Amino acid sequence: MAEQKKMVEAITSMEDDFAQWYTDVVKKADLVDYSSVKGCMIIRPYGYAIWENIQRLMDARFKATGHENVYMPLFIPESLLQKEKDHVEGFAPEVAWVTHGGSAELEERLCVRPTSETLFCDHYAKIVHSYRDLPKLYNQWCNVVRWEKTTRPFLRTREFLWQEGHTVHATAEEAIAETEQMLNIYADFCKDELCMPVVKGRKTESDKFAGAVATYAIEALMHDGKALQAGTSHYFGDGFARAFNMTFTDKENKLQYMHQTSWGTTTRLIGGIIMTHGDNNGLVLPPAVAPIQVVILPIAQHKEGVLDKAYELRDRLAKRFRVKVDDSDQSAGWKFAEYEMKGVPLRLEIGPKDIAANQCVIVRRDNREKVFVSLDDLEESVQKALDDFAAAIYQKALENRENRTYACKTVDEINATLAEKGDGFIKAMWCGSEECEDKVKELTGAGSRCIPLEQEQVSDVCVCCGKPAQCLVYWGKAY
Amino acid sequence: MAEQKKMVEAITSMEDDFAQWYTDVVKKADLVDYSSVKGCMIIRPYGYAIWENIQRLMDARFKATGHENVYMPLFIPESLLQKEKDHVEGFAPEVAWVTHGGSAELEERLCVRPTSETLFCDHYAKIVHSYRDLPKLYNQWCNVVRWEKTTRPFLRTREFLWQEGHTVHATAEEAIAETEQMLNIYADFCKDELCMPVVKGRKTESDKFAGAVATYAIEALMHDGKALQAGTSHYFGDGFARAFNMTFTDKENKLQYMHQTSWGTTTRLIGGIIMTHGDNNGLVLPPAVAPIQVVILPIAQHKEGVLDKAYELRDRLAKRFRVKVDDSDQSAGWKFAEYEMKGVPLRLEIGPKDIAANQCVIVRRDNREKVFVSLDDLEESVQKALDDFAAAIYQKALENRENRTYACKTVDEINATLAEKGDGFIKAMWCGSEECEDKVKELTGAGSRCIPLEQEQVSDVCVCCGKPAQCLVYWGKAY
Repeated sequence: MAEQKKMVEAITSMEDDFAQWYTDVVKKADLVDYSSVKGCMIIRPYGYAIWENIQRLMDARFKATGHENVYMPLFIPESLLQKEKDHVEGFAPEVAWVTHGGSAELEERLCVRPTSETLFCDHYAKIVHSYRDLPKLYNQWCNVVRWEKTTRPFLRTREFLWQEGHTVHATAEEAIAETEQMLNIYADFCKDELCMPVVKGRKTESDKFAGAVATYAIEALMHDGKALQAGTSHYFGDGFARAFNMTFTDKENKLQYMHQTSWGTTTRLIGGIIMTHGDNNGLVLPPAVAPIQVVILPIAQHKEGVLDKAYELRDRLAKRFRVKVDDSDQSAGWKFAEYEMKGVPLRLEIGPKDIAANQCVIVRRDNREKVFVSLDDLEESVQKALDDFAAAIYQKALENRENRTYACKTVDEINATLAEKGDGFIKAMWCGSEECEDKVKELTGAGSRCIPLEQEQVSDVCVCCGKPAQCLVYWGKAY
Repeated sequence: MAEQKKMVEAITSMEDDFAQWYTDVVKKADLVDYSSVKGCMIIRPYGYAIWENIQRLMDARFKATGHENVYMPLFIPESLLQKEKDHVEGFAPEVAWVTHGGSAELEERLCVRPTSETLFCDHYAKIVHSYRDLPKLYNQWCNVVRWEKTTRPFLRTREFLWQEGHTVHATAEEAIAETEQMLNIYADFCKDELCMPVVKGRKTESDKFAGAVATYAIEALMHDGKALQAGTSHYFGDGFARAFNMTFTDKENKLQYMHQTSWGTTTRLIGGIIMTHGDNNGLVLPPAVAPIQVVILPIAQHKEGVLDKAYELRDRLAKRFRVKVDDSDQSAGWKFAEYEMKGVPLRLEIGPKDIAANQCVIVRRDNREKVFVSLDDLEESVQKALDDFAAAIYQKALENRENRTYACKTVDEINATLAEKGDGFIKAMWCGSEECEDKVKELTGAGSRCIPLEQEQVSDVCVCCGKPAQCLVYWGKAY
């Protein structure tokens, strides 16, 4: 118990050292552990339960929009990876290579998939023949590997879990609509389920996915003012289709190339949740994905009837919520700290006096607000408290982003803002040249995050060169 | 359409060539496709939907018995794999080795997990300190790789999907009870959800998992009389614990080694479903895992009101069942054949005359039995038809196994039986020596499948050497 108490106390404050705070939280809330494989993490039960909730809710949105799940091989033959020039250039430097099966050297090296465009292309080329076979709207949930040099749990690891959607369509218009639809699904998911506001935008040319015509992304702002790319949706045109000879006969019986998209989100979303909502007491979890939504703490649990009442309330609530009773012999103080660390949205306290008064106490994790509620309509009170909690943490995250979003007209102004206010989103105009994009990053440390779909006019000219501006860009430092 | 018609007709009959029948079914029911990576398969939407149903139902049983899901890394450093002698000897010859990350050669080779005992051991050694931390009941759903030479979709592929449970306990008794519990969960799952009868038994010494004290398995008999090992549950004692220094302090504050289990089932179960229930018209799917439980075929769908009625029935049934309307312009004959090929348990036909009579036709996939049912209580009729269907295909599979299980007293009798009746389970006594086990296999082609938990006495002496028998063994040829 002494050791456990220490665990709860030992968290670094986020104002002192945000990076250390993050590491403390992921370890002390039992989300991950380090493994003996450098750069790979173990996702522990509490962390994995969050991912299972994300998967379930996101998968339902995919299926509701007509997508089907499949499973493609883990390995990609080197020759297949090389078929699309930009794609192989983008990924080859960071893939893991399998060279031996058992004791025998392979005839051809296999890369461990960093992403599966090439496999889906190969498959679609085989199974799609006619316009009647289109569209194909496939997704897969799997692991991928990218041989990163610097890694951090959830944010950047050599292996990570994700979903990758890959679709093919008869026309460019349909493929573009799909790209936009998935971007919107991601943004809605982040807002509705993760209580995380995001900016929808398009990546600049230099920041596109390897092989894409256009890459769209959702960008979230973390508590420390750094940006997190939380999901991407790519439009490929027919580039891969030409490289992989993906053709179909249209209604006029003419051979056409397919039009293609891909889109993905990863376990990185868990990092986003932590850095959007967490505080100096640990995690704060959105109710939709919290492994435990309500923890019931029996007070004076040795007294007659307290534990029975706690179990009775659990059995009632378990019909609608994810609920747990902690009837261990730890102190109430330890339990308070433990479930705050774990970010459980609601703590329900029930003791002898409460039982006598036919009530209990509900304490919210985000603001520690305490309310006494009648046991008669407990389900409704819990539902309302969870809804209020979700709305409140969304609002808080939105305010954080708005308070940390600054419009700037010159590079000097960007630097002055970052120096005075700290990191955040910088809204500034851009002429569209890669030269200016690079220069802003070099001079300010803030790279282009995205060209937001909702455009504004901060000034008429590029923040860097002063030539006529083409669009507004969100700039910022990123994870 | 011509091409699709041909697809349905082109299936080989199982009596002519069971292996080709199997290949035809997995391809023509759109379960899998071959990939450009030798020995790896693509699981297509219809096949993957079966796996999703298996996962959901089995995972619920795991969670109901207190298990939690985690995720361990894909890679195992060579030094870690080598820590347990029997284990590395068993697996090293068939693992895929990663030697390069990007362009750099790795300092230590990493194997792509063939199974994850070593990673779980490493983790448990770190996170378990006291008896209060035990038991740990972890499971993971993931992909594994074994570099097999001969592969067949679902039955044996170089990469496959599975779940692997890994648990540690304070005492041997608890670990043994866990091993047995999981074997029972697997057997119940096969019976209740897959309508597949299995024999529960223990593997002989020569057939144990690499590193186990005891391996238990469920063995099913396929339609062709060959056996399929459908799941295994291993008791490890403290062998891995000693190799990985997995200790904890007990209640008396003494250092003890943990006691351990692991257990797994794979996408092979889908192969088992196909070969247990399928027939010459294609798949026959157990309702619990069928992606579509009821397909609604509108008859004379151009006539007014037919399609509307079909959609109305779909919307009603969709509240309780997985249901689909096929309103495509294919002929009724094509649709009948297509959904028979796909093994959809029930076909619901609704045409103008039915609508007038407030009824519809339900046709069962297994025996093509047709019944007219009132639309008033359609949900109940569908439920009953599905229940009857599930009971019937289980009964049929059980009868197939019983009809193909033969008690033999001598090796000659085994050979005569196999020659006369074809493959099946041979019940015969065994003295317990590896020599006799090998000799039976050599002389008859039938290896030991398992020592069934429900023992019988077929004779007093070993089927091979004539010395006193130790136990009854199920022998047979296996996938």
